[in-house]
Amino acid sequence: MKFQGVPNNYTPIILTARPALIPMPSPILEAIEQRRSIRNFTEQTVDSNTLYEIIQAGVWAPSGLNNQPWRFAIVTDAAIRARLAEQTTYGHIVLGAPALIGVYLDRQAMYDDLKDAQSAGACIQNMLLAAEALGLGAVWLGQILKNREKVGEILGLAANLELMAIIAIGHPSRRDQQSQRKPLAEFIVKEL
Amino acid sequence: MKFQGVPNNYTPIILTARPALIPMPSPILEAIEQRRSIRNFTEQTVDSNTLYEIIQAGVWAPSGLNNQPWRFAIVTDAAIRARLAEQTTYGHIVLGAPALIGVYLDRQAMYDDLKDAQSAGACIQNMLLAAEALGLGAVWLGQILKNREKVGEILGLAANLELMAIIAIGHPSRRDQQSQRKPLAEFIVKEL
Repeated sequence: MKFQGVPNNYTPIILTARPALIPMPSPILEAIEQRRSIRNFTEQTVDSNTLYEIIQAGVWAPSGLNNQPWRFAIVTDAAIRARLAEQTTYGHIVLGAPALIGVYLDRQAMYDDLKDAQSAGACIQNMLLAAEALGLGAVWLGQILKNREKVGEILGLAANLELMAIIAIGHPSRRDQQSQRKPLAEFIVKEL
Repeated sequence: MKFQGVPNNYTPIILTARPALIPMPSPILEAIEQRRSIRNFTEQTVDSNTLYEIIQAGVWAPSGLNNQPWRFAIVTDAAIRARLAEQTTYGHIVLGAPALIGVYLDRQAMYDDLKDAQSAGACIQNMLLAAEALGLGAVWLGQILKNREKVGEILGLAANLELMAIIAIGHPSRRDQQSQRKPLAEFIVKEL
């Protein structure tokens, strides 16, 4: 055992300069740190190729046994977005986003509920990072899961598809979002 | 409804040139695409600051209600790695990796089993991307979950911590790993 806990003098270099570890600033670490949930969008639409690119980034996530259980429903139609908006208390975001991607798991491809759900999260994180890399903003919507069956009806999806989240995507109307994380030491429970 | 399915002539630009969408090649999309599971490591150790940086990237993942439920156990001690190696059929990876990070959820911070598990996956994906950005390699180990209680005993962790995965990290002994994904069209079940 070396020591317990993060030393008091540790400054997370991801938040500051990082010459010691990384010869050049890492755009990857910066992207991870600077990503924010974007909930307000301009009226500018998002073209299909851009949405495909975001999904392509999603499917480069790892999955257990490489089972690739993710499935996606793209919604840009305003009338369908309006119906989906009624299924969540965050309906104003669903209405205001020019594009939605429903992220599903295919029960026929799944092998482990927990690990496949984790893999859906990894897939979604790739999509959120990709959206920002493409100059867009996005937010991960989970509250709508309480009406997942109704969402499936609206989208006309097969029963083997289980809703994991809806990602709202668009051109950000502003980029001054702030977010907070606890100090790193509060997350690290053991060092052995 | 615009059309069903990805057009036959669609080429995922993440895999090729992408002048149409992205003026400059995006290091973020490239990192997402090029990340591979690394299972073979050199004997070179990984310093604590680098592991903290990887964890810091992890906690920049989104979480429901920003509950930040992730907790981490860092293991570099060879004797403890040897005990952990006995808990999984992938013990040779656990033994060969100079650093392990156990990713946990804190039941006292959780609010929704499914969404917190997804958030753990998003956190892990950030960590895998960060490891590669820092010149390291990593692999997400899930099979060890079958012995999660024993792992908790070996690490001396409180019962409120639930193991989500162990990430094995080190300097890759090679970087020629290949991975495959199904064609994008097989993932997109609906376009509305």
